[in-house]
Amino acid sequence: MIPDFEITVLGNTSSIPVHGRNHTAQILRFGQDFLLLDCGEGMQIQARKYKIKISRIKHIFISHLHGDHYLGLVGLLSSYHLAKRETPLTIFGPRGLDEIITTHFRWSDTKIGYQINFVQTKTDEMNLLLDENLFQVYSFPLKHRIPTTGFLIREKFGLRSLVKEKIEKKELSIEGIKSLRAGIDYYSQEGEIFKVKEYTYPLPPLRSYAFCSDTIFDPSLKNHIGRADLLYHESTFMEQDRERAGLTFHSTAKQAGEIAKLCGAKKLLLGHFSSRYAKLEGLLAEAQSEFPESELSEEGQTYVI
Amino acid sequence: MIPDFEITVLGNTSSIPVHGRNHTAQILRFGQDFLLLDCGEGMQIQARKYKIKISRIKHIFISHLHGDHYLGLVGLLSSYHLAKRETPLTIFGPRGLDEIITTHFRWSDTKIGYQINFVQTKTDEMNLLLDENLFQVYSFPLKHRIPTTGFLIREKFGLRSLVKEKIEKKELSIEGIKSLRAGIDYYSQEGEIFKVKEYTYPLPPLRSYAFCSDTIFDPSLKNHIGRADLLYHESTFMEQDRERAGLTFHSTAKQAGEIAKLCGAKKLLLGHFSSRYAKLEGLLAEAQSEFPESELSEEGQTYVI
Repeated sequence: MIPDFEITVLGNTSSIPVHGRNHTAQILRFGQDFLLLDCGEGMQIQARKYKIKISRIKHIFISHLHGDHYLGLVGLLSSYHLAKRETPLTIFGPRGLDEIITTHFRWSDTKIGYQINFVQTKTDEMNLLLDENLFQVYSFPLKHRIPTTGFLIREKFGLRSLVKEKIEKKELSIEGIKSLRAGIDYYSQEGEIFKVKEYTYPLPPLRSYAFCSDTIFDPSLKNHIGRADLLYHESTFMEQDRERAGLTFHSTAKQAGEIAKLCGAKKLLLGHFSSRYAKLEGLLAEAQSEFPESELSEEGQTYVI
Repeated sequence: MIPDFEITVLGNTSSIPVHGRNHTAQILRFGQDFLLLDCGEGMQIQARKYKIKISRIKHIFISHLHGDHYLGLVGLLSSYHLAKRETPLTIFGPRGLDEIITTHFRWSDTKIGYQINFVQTKTDEMNLLLDENLFQVYSFPLKHRIPTTGFLIREKFGLRSLVKEKIEKKELSIEGIKSLRAGIDYYSQEGEIFKVKEYTYPLPPLRSYAFCSDTIFDPSLKNHIGRADLLYHESTFMEQDRERAGLTFHSTAKQAGEIAKLCGAKKLLLGHFSSRYAKLEGLLAEAQSEFPESELSEEGQTYVI
């Protein structure tokens, strides 16, 4: 069975939270695993609104230390503490996040009752952060005003499904079955060869999701994210504000489209919209002019990868 | 004309923000002045929901450094910066708040474009924090797990209204009018005495609001807040959880009622409700058993003082 791989957008705005839009936070679900990508202010309220069980999150990834990407984190950690969480939590983020969090808890005189592991992301090169049975998470550098990384979540080769009709006719040891499911041809003690190609179904293509939170237009992204099935790329501005995008190290929707085309992404998800745009159709049109498979991220919406 | 004096409740919950309730934040309006009392996470979203112009706030008061009372502050300061605020802002709060805020802005590499003045509150004695033309703000100590203050906002003697019928019959200089309105008898150059009592209406009674955010049951509060027209007193728990209230330095609704009775308050407003109570009628009933003029604070509701 192919595990579910999807994200739910909790916030799609940049800067000032107006028009009923919230700051960046995304829940990524891979099978039974829940990851949190960025954690803007109000993330908990948004998660409850959309019926997401925040207690299931074990790994949190923070792209950078601008407030609209992490100001909900201390509140979330406090809620876990108050709810008597026991499961350890790992937080990946740039240098400084550790100090910010410990400063809060020092002044509130809070001894967090569960284990928090801080892992400092390297903001100058691609790095493997998490290697689970079925997927991996990498960080990669984004070009922004302060050290920033994106995150790439890639499915790993899983176990293959057996062609039951063929297997049932044979006497195959458990060892043999394990070997075939892992994709390794098996030679039985009786000298028979069991070919993976013959006794298992082909694996489906491996899926990937690239999360580019805040970045200036940067064609070198291609080197890091490859052909993502779903590319989330910030699109703070429209073309009329392109100069401002450059000055603030952000991208226009059209530039996000260009990146998606360049990388050969299957689909582009837009977000991090400036508060200056009450309506977002213009951003979508500009992205689609470069990359037709573009979509506006909507809060509460789940996107299958 | 008597200036409006009212508060709008933006959040009424403690600890984990569930049941659609938000963390503590209140907007106090005195005439044209807007103050913010505590600033829980999501304060900006709540303020917009209830059509409050946050740009008009010039003074912010933070009672203590537990996250549910100030985690919306850094986001608010950032929004002011992004909106190109020019008006200086003064923040009153306990030791540590300054460090927390500067730590955030150091890591986000943000040079705030308007003046922020930090004023450290004394958490062991009553203090005058702000002395405006028409009102004053005092801090006073609350007994909580970490250093905490409440805030008392008291109307000052304002200008008196003239008895027009009597004044119109006289030739009174501008100086004379100013004197009478300020409550000082006036002796004209011609030797005539204008008595304040005769030429002005009596001043209405002075109004006051006491804000007690987080505190254990503490009868000594009476010494600080006196006969407040409106007393906001936390009521985190019901009587069935009285022991827990003591352990966590919080109060029950009944205890809030006892304090209101003891102080001779005109009205009691309850808030900071524990997430364990989905419905709040029980808290109200317990407070009213001690003090009939009790009311549950509701988010978005404005209470006239």
